[in-house]
Amino acid sequence: MFGQCLENVRRTIPLVHNITNYVTVNDVANMILACGGSPIMSDEPEDVKDITAICDGLNINIGTLNKRSIEGMFLAGARANELGHAVLLDPVGAGASALRTGTAMKLLENITFDAIRGNISEIKTLALGSGTTKGVDADAADVVREENLNVMVSFAKSFADKRKVIVAITGAIDLVADGETCYVIRNGRAEMSKITGTGCQLSGIMTAYLAANPDNKLEAAAAAVCLMGLAGETGFGYMQKGDGNATYCRRIIDAVYNLDADTLDKGANYEIR
Amino acid sequence: MFGQCLENVRRTIPLVHNITNYVTVNDVANMILACGGSPIMSDEPEDVKDITAICDGLNINIGTLNKRSIEGMFLAGARANELGHAVLLDPVGAGASALRTGTAMKLLENITFDAIRGNISEIKTLALGSGTTKGVDADAADVVREENLNVMVSFAKSFADKRKVIVAITGAIDLVADGETCYVIRNGRAEMSKITGTGCQLSGIMTAYLAANPDNKLEAAAAAVCLMGLAGETGFGYMQKGDGNATYCRRIIDAVYNLDADTLDKGANYEIR
Amino acid sequence: MFGQCLENVRRTIPLVHNITNYVTVNDVANMILACGGSPIMSDEPEDVKDITAICDGLNINIGTLNKRSIEGMFLAGARANELGHAVLLDPVGAGASALRTGTAMKLLENITFDAIRGNISEIKTLALGSGTTKGVDADAADVVREENLNVMVSFAKSFADKRKVIVAITGAIDLVADGETCYVIRNGRAEMSKITGTGCQLSGIMTAYLAANPDNKLEAAAAAVCLMGLAGETGFGYMQKGDGNATYCRRIIDAVYNLDADTLDKGANYEIR
Repeated sequence: MFGQCLENVRRTIPLVHNITNYVTVNDVANMILACGGSPIMSDEPEDVKDITAICDGLNINIGTLNKRSIEGMFLAGARANELGHAVLLDPVGAGASALRTGTAMKLLENITFDAIRGNISEIKTLALGSGTTKGVDADAADVVREENLNVMVSFAKSFADKRKVIVAITGAIDLVADGETCYVIRNGRAEMSKITGTGCQLSGIMTAYLAANPDNKLEAAAAAVCLMGLAGETGFGYMQKGDGNATYCRRIIDAVYNLDADTLDKGANYEIR
Repeated sequence: MFGQCLENVRRTIPLVHNITNYVTVNDVANMILACGGSPIMSDEPEDVKDITAICDGLNINIGTLNKRSIEGMFLAGARANELGHAVLLDPVGAGASALRTGTAMKLLENITFDAIRGNISEIKTLALGSGTTKGVDADAADVVREENLNVMVSFAKSFADKRKVIVAITGAIDLVADGETCYVIRNGRAEMSKITGTGCQLSGIMTAYLAANPDNKLEAAAAAVCLMGLAGETGFGYMQKGDGNATYCRRIIDAVYNLDADTLDKGANYEIR
Repeated sequence: MFGQCLENVRRTIPLVHNITNYVTVNDVANMILACGGSPIMSDEPEDVKDITAICDGLNINIGTLNKRSIEGMFLAGARANELGHAVLLDPVGAGASALRTGTAMKLLENITFDAIRGNISEIKTLALGSGTTKGVDADAADVVREENLNVMVSFAKSFADKRKVIVAITGAIDLVADGETCYVIRNGRAEMSKITGTGCQLSGIMTAYLAANPDNKLEAAAAAVCLMGLAGETGFGYMQKGDGNATYCRRIIDAVYNLDADTLDKGANYEIR
């Protein structure tokens, strides 16, 4: 059950090494603390191998990448693979530039990832090796909907199978799949898209969940997605007159901080296909 | 009317490329979302030309500049100019160091900006080509006051005319001018100066407003300034016992998120000189 | 008295140059504003000497260090020393990697610091010249407790004496010592450890306090630690149902913003050993 995944994170306090963008990094750190993990950030090539060695998981996020941090990603990824750590890729903006698409593809070729989490446009870019993404948001034409759900579930499984990875495609409906099983998750709220970095935050949480649940990573990844969506619902319940996206961001992190295993098990809204 | 400018942003969802400092970048991103735009950040020289090409506007902010990001600013600016995108300069700390002053002056010489937004010390530095700024805040001696308003309006128009640019000088009284017309704006609250990055946030909003209102950029820039000031007033109305500058920062972003066209038109407090 | 230290900050508005990590930098900036100072951030080697020259204090924090920012740290530190500015070192993650430990040690050898603020594992690493830190948090085995307090007070004084520096070791019990006197401080709450960057924020405050109180730096450093702890207590008093670590972070900054000299003097919970 998802509640057990949550408790494993709170009990083991996984240390998560993040090479991530400077836009949302503070929220990622507070979110990893909120879910029960411990964050550390480092992107300097000379520093990353030591840092990742003392960690339990590695979260690579390519937003605001630069040549120095890209070098750090490859070094940290190789070291984390040697040590058998959980490793996640968040391909922010893959499809929006040649550098982002190319870096994501090279990372996929050179590092073994446990999971990839992105929006549908980013994942489609990785599947095709090229793409055109509207910035860091998903193209409307690609969005996972009830009408195209079967096609999208097949796409997710097929991509996961080809890359031998867990793929999490997040949006209004979230898909978390390996080659055989796909969780279709309907937690969350549309207003979450008006906050910068909810995806980055989820990638941080998911890395902690993967690190703390090595024996059932697919379930752990799905639990992280349900947790984030449920926190979006719970946090929204505390919104008051005059509140907007900035306060909502705080409330979602607060909700993750306060969520317990029983509430997650009861609130998780998913089916398996 | 300003309300129409606001609605154009919400309707067209301009994508804004930001090359900005790592201090206030998260608030800039959430503020661009709050006003109805969509933010993307990228400063790596190899990445910026692709990123800016898919955007509608470019916001260049020289806080925490470095040699790599400076190179990115020139490349992105040139590309945005080729494509006819809205381009804004926020000369954070111009006058505080030779590198900042020199970079701002070189940007002005090499890139065509639609607007420049800064405090009076920063704009005076650009007008003179040199200056002494007390950090990132305006020198008290320079501040726009009722007593020196005529002189300051003339200065703003003269600078705007010489540089063929819209200039927004923000402080207790805000001036938004081209060579002929100056909006004198009296929205906002003094407490906004106790939050880091309200200027950076306004620059992000203004870029979105310029991008979504290509046919009346001066009015759009003035609308953005009124919006920010009005949000400062509205947000302050929600402050409760124990709240301080950190919560106030959230409340201003929230207020921008919730502000509608009618409220902006009614609350905008300005005269034209 | 500590209240006088607080009033000196609010009266003189010290300008603090921060070379700090991109994870917690926004909170550091807002915290420096909240306590009555003014922040500026710059890490580019070509920029830092000019920037630090116009400031009153320099806060060097080695979280997310890179080769460029390390070069900036040495240049800024040397210049601040020449000018007699207050200079503080926050050795984030010393002991967690060779680069962090080595950089902290070299900084100690080449720059004269007024104060060093870190957790016990980081300070032990500096005392030994090597160490193994669990990420950016203190190792449980090292924590300052009532049972080992005498030993820890001696360690703090001995380290301070050897390095001719004020050392602030923060945790559940905080120690602020020079070679002869140690403040043992029992303000604060355990929940503060679930927020990223409370240590970084305190380092920013402490630099402002040192800069504004040049004649009694030990007392000023202790006042800053009491202020932060007391703000943690006050801010917690405003927590409501559903609030978690993200809101708590805001409330602590808010509490610093609202704290006055009298409240600090009455709320400071310390003994001198």
